[in-house]
Amino acid sequence: MSETGTHHQPTAEQQYTPIPYGAPFAAFMLLPIPSTHSYKPPKKYEIGSGSSTDPKVVTCFNLADQDGNGFIDDKELQRFLSSDNQIFSLRIVHLLMYHITNTNTRVLGPMEFTSLLSTLQYWTSIFQRFDKDRSGKIDSSQLEVVLQSLGFSVSPVTLDLLVSKFDKSGGVEKVIEYDNFVGCCLTLKTLTDMFKEKETNNSGSATFTYESLKLKVLPFLIA
Amino acid sequence: MSETGTHHQPTAEQQYTPIPYGAPFAAFMLLPIPSTHSYKPPKKYEIGSGSSTDPKVVTCFNLADQDGNGFIDDKELQRFLSSDNQIFSLRIVHLLMYHITNTNTRVLGPMEFTSLLSTLQYWTSIFQRFDKDRSGKIDSSQLEVVLQSLGFSVSPVTLDLLVSKFDKSGGVEKVIEYDNFVGCCLTLKTLTDMFKEKETNNSGSATFTYESLKLKVLPFLIA
Ligand SMILES: [Ca+2]
Ligand SMILES: [Ca+2]
Repeated sequence: MSETGTHHQPTAEQQYTPIPYGAPFAAFMLLPIPSTHSYKPPKKYEIGSGSSTDPKVVTCFNLADQDGNGFIDDKELQRFLSSDNQIFSLRIVHLLMYHITNTNTRVLGPMEFTSLLSTLQYWTSIFQRFDKDRSGKIDSSQLEVVLQSLGFSVSPVTLDLLVSKFDKSGGVEKVIEYDNFVGCCLTLKTLTDMFKEKETNNSGSATFTYESLKLKVLPFLIA
Repeated sequence: MSETGTHHQPTAEQQYTPIPYGAPFAAFMLLPIPSTHSYKPPKKYEIGSGSSTDPKVVTCFNLADQDGNGFIDDKELQRFLSSDNQIFSLRIVHLLMYHITNTNTRVLGPMEFTSLLSTLQYWTSIFQRFDKDRSGKIDSSQLEVVLQSLGFSVSPVTLDLLVSKFDKSGGVEKVIEYDNFVGCCLTLKTLTDMFKEKETNNSGSATFTYESLKLKVLPFLIA
């Protein structure tokens, strides 16, 4: 196919060619899975500071860096996280990149990529225990168990809210696809971190000034 | 044009036909503008509880309700808020509808529509004072003054954050279009309301439990 035709400019969605299920994902899943079941946020930039780079991470990075320029851009990350069945949404890719870099640059170096993998792999390993037929989807009652397994405490009201938002049918089918599951975890993790940072002495209450509330919520709200 | 062709299904964007600038908007701007300059959140469902319906609101409602079914859906609201120059983004329309109804139904009755108008008209009147050439855009230094006029206190850091997020060029041009200006106000209003609700005795500090933080932030985060 030539790239010269301009009459039927494909959309970003159409241009995307899914990679056969398993190729990048299998490599990704080779990474060691943390043994504890309660949620522990992975340290940022773990690699490089101490232990030397895991060769599996290098394999993953090279798989993801399709143009070989030494950085993973948003489209490359989207392809890496997508499967044959499912395109990982660009919005969640952007949220992930923002979460890791704290900027809008939308490019990951090896360290940021490693940090992202260690955040994702644990979530994904638990997700896959429930997604037995590898459809890339779980239902809302499974979501509750998965989130509990990850150590996120969710009340029934919160769960309903999450399902109504992250179910692509708007709460009708009550099915959560993999990308939205990641969005869901990312949201809960951000809120948990936000709370913990402002909580005083395990009191169960977090105190914010008007400015600190804005500075905490705004970046995530509109990323 | 017939509606039977299915070969070239138009996208939502292509289906949209902008209304000549001024038609619905002029009616909208005929509504009385509150006299105070400090921000006062309009009461929800003001009309119907006390004063009888303003005939100008009825005119606006009928203009917006293009299929005459007695409700304003998201596409109708988008058309009403769009101008010749600018299509009001559907994402901000949905945020507005969520803000007014607290549900995902995306349909407004006359009372909700009235509430929405009273929220919007004040923001818009101030916006238009700065958008002298009616381009539908203001720059970042104007945004600061507009937000201050609306009684929103924004620090330089917050302003930078807002501009980097609500400027469609991602912070390069530092220009805010009307729809994103509304998104910006809506975001600040939500955060302000959230803060005020949890603030104790004007102490400048708001206290949240983990659950209350999730229930407050989640709906807006992922609307
Ligand atoms: Ca690359
Ligand atoms: Ca209608």
